[in-house]
Amino acid sequence: MTVTATRLAKPAPSLDPMIRLVANDMNAVNQVIVDRMRSEIPLIPQLAGHLISGGGKRMRPMLTLASAQLLGYQGTSHHVLAAAVEFIHTATLLHDDVVDGSDLRRGRRTANIIWGNPASVLVGDFLFSRSFQLMVDAGSLKVLNILSGASAVIAEGEVNQLTAVRQVGLPEERYLSIIDAKTAALFAAACRIAAVVAERPEAEELALEAYGRNLGIAFQLIDDAIDYVSDAGTMGKDAGDDFREGKMTLPVILAYARGNEEERTFWKDAVEGRRTSDEDFAHAIALVRKSRAVDDTMARARHYGGLAIEAIRGFADGPAKAAMIEAVEFAVARAY
Amino acid sequence: MTVTATRLAKPAPSLDPMIRLVANDMNAVNQVIVDRMRSEIPLIPQLAGHLISGGGKRMRPMLTLASAQLLGYQGTSHHVLAAAVEFIHTATLLHDDVVDGSDLRRGRRTANIIWGNPASVLVGDFLFSRSFQLMVDAGSLKVLNILSGASAVIAEGEVNQLTAVRQVGLPEERYLSIIDAKTAALFAAACRIAAVVAERPEAEELALEAYGRNLGIAFQLIDDAIDYVSDAGTMGKDAGDDFREGKMTLPVILAYARGNEEERTFWKDAVEGRRTSDEDFAHAIALVRKSRAVDDTMARARHYGGLAIEAIRGFADGPAKAAMIEAVEFAVARAY
Repeated sequence: MTVTATRLAKPAPSLDPMIRLVANDMNAVNQVIVDRMRSEIPLIPQLAGHLISGGGKRMRPMLTLASAQLLGYQGTSHHVLAAAVEFIHTATLLHDDVVDGSDLRRGRRTANIIWGNPASVLVGDFLFSRSFQLMVDAGSLKVLNILSGASAVIAEGEVNQLTAVRQVGLPEERYLSIIDAKTAALFAAACRIAAVVAERPEAEELALEAYGRNLGIAFQLIDDAIDYVSDAGTMGKDAGDDFREGKMTLPVILAYARGNEEERTFWKDAVEGRRTSDEDFAHAIALVRKSRAVDDTMARARHYGGLAIEAIRGFADGPAKAAMIEAVEFAVARAY
Repeated sequence: MTVTATRLAKPAPSLDPMIRLVANDMNAVNQVIVDRMRSEIPLIPQLAGHLISGGGKRMRPMLTLASAQLLGYQGTSHHVLAAAVEFIHTATLLHDDVVDGSDLRRGRRTANIIWGNPASVLVGDFLFSRSFQLMVDAGSLKVLNILSGASAVIAEGEVNQLTAVRQVGLPEERYLSIIDAKTAALFAAACRIAAVVAERPEAEELALEAYGRNLGIAFQLIDDAIDYVSDAGTMGKDAGDDFREGKMTLPVILAYARGNEEERTFWKDAVEGRRTSDEDFAHAIALVRKSRAVDDTMARARHYGGLAIEAIRGFADGPAKAAMIEAVEFAVARAY
């Protein structure tokens, strides 16, 4: 019996195949990142390096590289563009941590805590400018169009999220449009630009865009679910950050919608900042579980994950496609 | 005698000829600005509009338009690019006010005071992204190269300034490199891109770049001098802001360098934040005057103004050239 069980057990999905797939390319990307982070002003590489070398998975540049391999692209333009994508992402993280007043990211103190908000704002601006310089180096107006569009959408999504904070009763649709903008837009662009540099037909651009977008939504849904099932150790950020900041993420939206009068009063008080203790957070977790709000958030993540996998069905089978499918499975399985 | 004196008196230099020169073009630029400031997120046009319609002179887009006229450019690409330049400038102002904690700009409450730092950071990011979308619309990789380079240099200059704050004894060279980056780089780029869209030889690009750069340095020198000769009414910002923030501007650098031991102790205390009262500021103004630090700051501004005028000497005479020369004379005469 034990033998059978072992043989039948499917290993947990992993990001490792994708990491291995792009390992050589990623070395080239890292070289671009290190080279272009340089500045005569020492604080810039110091602060940027803290975050860039701070244990991130480089998910977005990895998607550019994997997508390029899926298409059999043989050039090197994608290395510069993958670095540009990572710079945009890093700039938004620096600004996010200022906006949220966060003090912990990936288990380390945030740049704004170490060097202050002004430095984080300005170094974010620097990285953002550098990302556009990298795109100019790559020489494709079409890529510039996609990434400048994504950047504008990200900023819009962040402002939208800011105005949605502490709004109990936020509709699920508004939440979805926020995560579509602030997270999925860059995932989508990161994948799509690979088809542009590989000079593939627009249908393939759109297929990769759909893969990235749906993966990005699934990724963010799981991130938001994890805030209500996990602790600071596994998250690398303070457990309950979203809760204490009054962020209307899907677990809260569903738990509020499904709550009785007493529970809705609790959520309103919590979201508006009148219940922020550890006991309040524990109660929130209990309500979120009771209402199956986390389960349903994860179910929605699996739905979008399925759409992501479906989007690349038409591409030739091979290690790139397999790794991209497993990356989706990994993303939606993270919370277990 | 009175008649003669009246006849001989030269009218004060004015920006009006340049404003009249570009009035029609500026209407087109303003239309682009209004169109591209739009967003489904109402806070974005609201906050951006507060600053963009807040009485700024639109100096930088005006320089793009005047330079294009100097070259006899007949197209319309420069309208979009002038709007892009204004968006970059507005984004940096939004972030500057967050970084400096300013509460007054051009005589009005700053956006960060009205809507908070998070909104100012994110709307700045939005405008910055939009500026790159506008450049993509204009379709010139060369312009994108110039303006993304200028943006990176501006951010570097701002970080450099941040690390120079409260450093009494800052060398004049370091101050010059800061204002060259944070102010002159965008003036230079605004002028240069006109030569690119007009497809003029590189020598003309460089001449306009030199005009813009030297005008930008002169402009910033006078701005920094005004902080020590004027009051909030004329400045549209709080008098003594630079003083209280411990900013090492040229008037302070010169007054400190020329001070006796007692005066240097005062400056050190002031710059390091231990002397910030109105009496301290009055004493600072007295020291700056006594040491001729403001006069010499203005003399340096006139020097750079002269270089700006010299840079465009080779272009054909006409209303555009005359307006550009008078704009320099206006810039360096502002403090009187």
